[in-house]
Amino acid sequence: MRSINDETITDVALEQMSGTSDPRFKLIMEAAVRHLHAFAREVNLTPEEWLEGIRFFTAVGQECTSYRQEFVLLSDVLGLSALVGLLNDKSGTGFHSDSSLLGPFYRENSPHFELGESIATKTHGREIALYGHVLDSNGRGIPQASIQIWQTDEEGDYDMQKAEAAEMDLRGTFDTDSEGRYYLRSVLPAGYSIPMDGPVGNLIRAQKRHGLRPSHIHYLLGAPGYRELVTALYIDGDPHIGSDTVFGVTDSLVVKPTEQDPASPFPNLPGIRYDFTLSFAGKDQASGRVGADPSQITRVAQRAGRAT
Amino acid sequence: MRSINDETITDVALEQMSGTSDPRFKLIMEAAVRHLHAFAREVNLTPEEWLEGIRFFTAVGQECTSYRQEFVLLSDVLGLSALVGLLNDKSGTGFHSDSSLLGPFYRENSPHFELGESIATKTHGREIALYGHVLDSNGRGIPQASIQIWQTDEEGDYDMQKAEAAEMDLRGTFDTDSEGRYYLRSVLPAGYSIPMDGPVGNLIRAQKRHGLRPSHIHYLLGAPGYRELVTALYIDGDPHIGSDTVFGVTDSLVVKPTEQDPASPFPNLPGIRYDFTLSFAGKDQASGRVGADPSQITRVAQRAGRAT
Repeated sequence: MRSINDETITDVALEQMSGTSDPRFKLIMEAAVRHLHAFAREVNLTPEEWLEGIRFFTAVGQECTSYRQEFVLLSDVLGLSALVGLLNDKSGTGFHSDSSLLGPFYRENSPHFELGESIATKTHGREIALYGHVLDSNGRGIPQASIQIWQTDEEGDYDMQKAEAAEMDLRGTFDTDSEGRYYLRSVLPAGYSIPMDGPVGNLIRAQKRHGLRPSHIHYLLGAPGYRELVTALYIDGDPHIGSDTVFGVTDSLVVKPTEQDPASPFPNLPGIRYDFTLSFAGKDQASGRVGADPSQITRVAQRAGRAT
Repeated sequence: MRSINDETITDVALEQMSGTSDPRFKLIMEAAVRHLHAFAREVNLTPEEWLEGIRFFTAVGQECTSYRQEFVLLSDVLGLSALVGLLNDKSGTGFHSDSSLLGPFYRENSPHFELGESIATKTHGREIALYGHVLDSNGRGIPQASIQIWQTDEEGDYDMQKAEAAEMDLRGTFDTDSEGRYYLRSVLPAGYSIPMDGPVGNLIRAQKRHGLRPSHIHYLLGAPGYRELVTALYIDGDPHIGSDTVFGVTDSLVVKPTEQDPASPFPNLPGIRYDFTLSFAGKDQASGRVGADPSQITRVAQRAGRAT
């Protein structure tokens, strides 16, 4: 034994965890404890503040239900979810488009559409065309790549937030043609607020943040031999494009609908043209792990209610 | 707006929180986000690991009830609770005895005893004497200082863990005499396990830790004009004295019962002599805050079930 003080306690704690059998889990927990202690030391955390923290985390956990994931929301508004996505991006092999948060509104088995069809089957709004290519890292079109797309309506609501939540709308699955092209129609989505009625909403208010996400369209792209890409396109001109509460927006994903594009399959519609690039699948040599499996992330994200 | 990458996202997040009106809250959240992001970067946290973390925190929150505080327990086993106590110790004015975790078994309004009486009113065991002084930072006895004491029985159970949980036993309140002396009788306590049936128990098992606390006696001492002291004495010889799962043990708080002490008020009983030192109350000039109010900590700690 030794004398424990506010400096030595970190080593004492790490020593007690040193028998952890899983080396990756050991590494993660060691780093977690070091950073947790460094945080407490840096701010000289008082017992009262510690207690407030205990109460906050408890409230976040108690807010979670089968249809709401307040801890994912907390991770989102602290920038952790976006950071984890960005770190994962770097672990791929070859160039690919930037990723963005999957969010809680993804649904598996969305209806399959033919190229050119509209995903707005129940909603009216300002019609837009979405088109471009799905390319490999060398710029070659990927034929029969799968594109899943989902978005809000003009009010900022996803289908699952409406009275008829079971009926899918404004989402669908497409396959690229033999040259890797995709083209479809939809309506312009709108931005929306994260859920503000729980402990994370209280945090956002205390930080004087607006709690809004700018208007965006989600994409999940994949093809055999390529790494899945979870991303979103953000509509330029949204007043919150520069202050997304969950930090999903980056320059390369901001798009401005063009009024006229002779090359568009729908020259009379405002259009958003975007070429997505997928990197090749395969074991990442640097970290020894393969790319993330979005289906796992999906399962928890689907339970996150109005999280992102 | 700017391009967000895994390095710049931290500044982007801090910028969005920069309007926080409470300066202390702003400082704490800024440090929390910086350390959280640094942790994720250091271990290159994968989406799957992030998801495991979300699940773990959610489970901890859902385990909390009116009589069990799993987040306090998590804080305890990561060494955070002890660290916060140690940091708080440093903020006092003048020398005082080391503190230790209050734990979840403190009860207000424990029965008042006269000096010399035994707190073991319903329990049998190996009788011991507890005696010494309550001193100020200058070594002068503090008359009529209040001493609250609580402990387990020989089986490692507190009164509130037994079938007759409402009936107090092995706890009591004493006042020092005119020279600051205290003396009372009890029975030797035993060590015990933290609750291992929740997510924190799973963590402890994955880390190959025993999850045990060594035998100890809790003290809460106070007197008008002095800062309250929450501490505990740990019984030398307990096999887990060097590996307390919640890091409450420090050298200065380890005591060995003496078989013979002619100066003891009970020379025929094994005795634990300990002089406690209280520091003077008052606003801490360094940090601008007063000493912690244990009664607040008590309220949450009381809901922590078998936490410490």
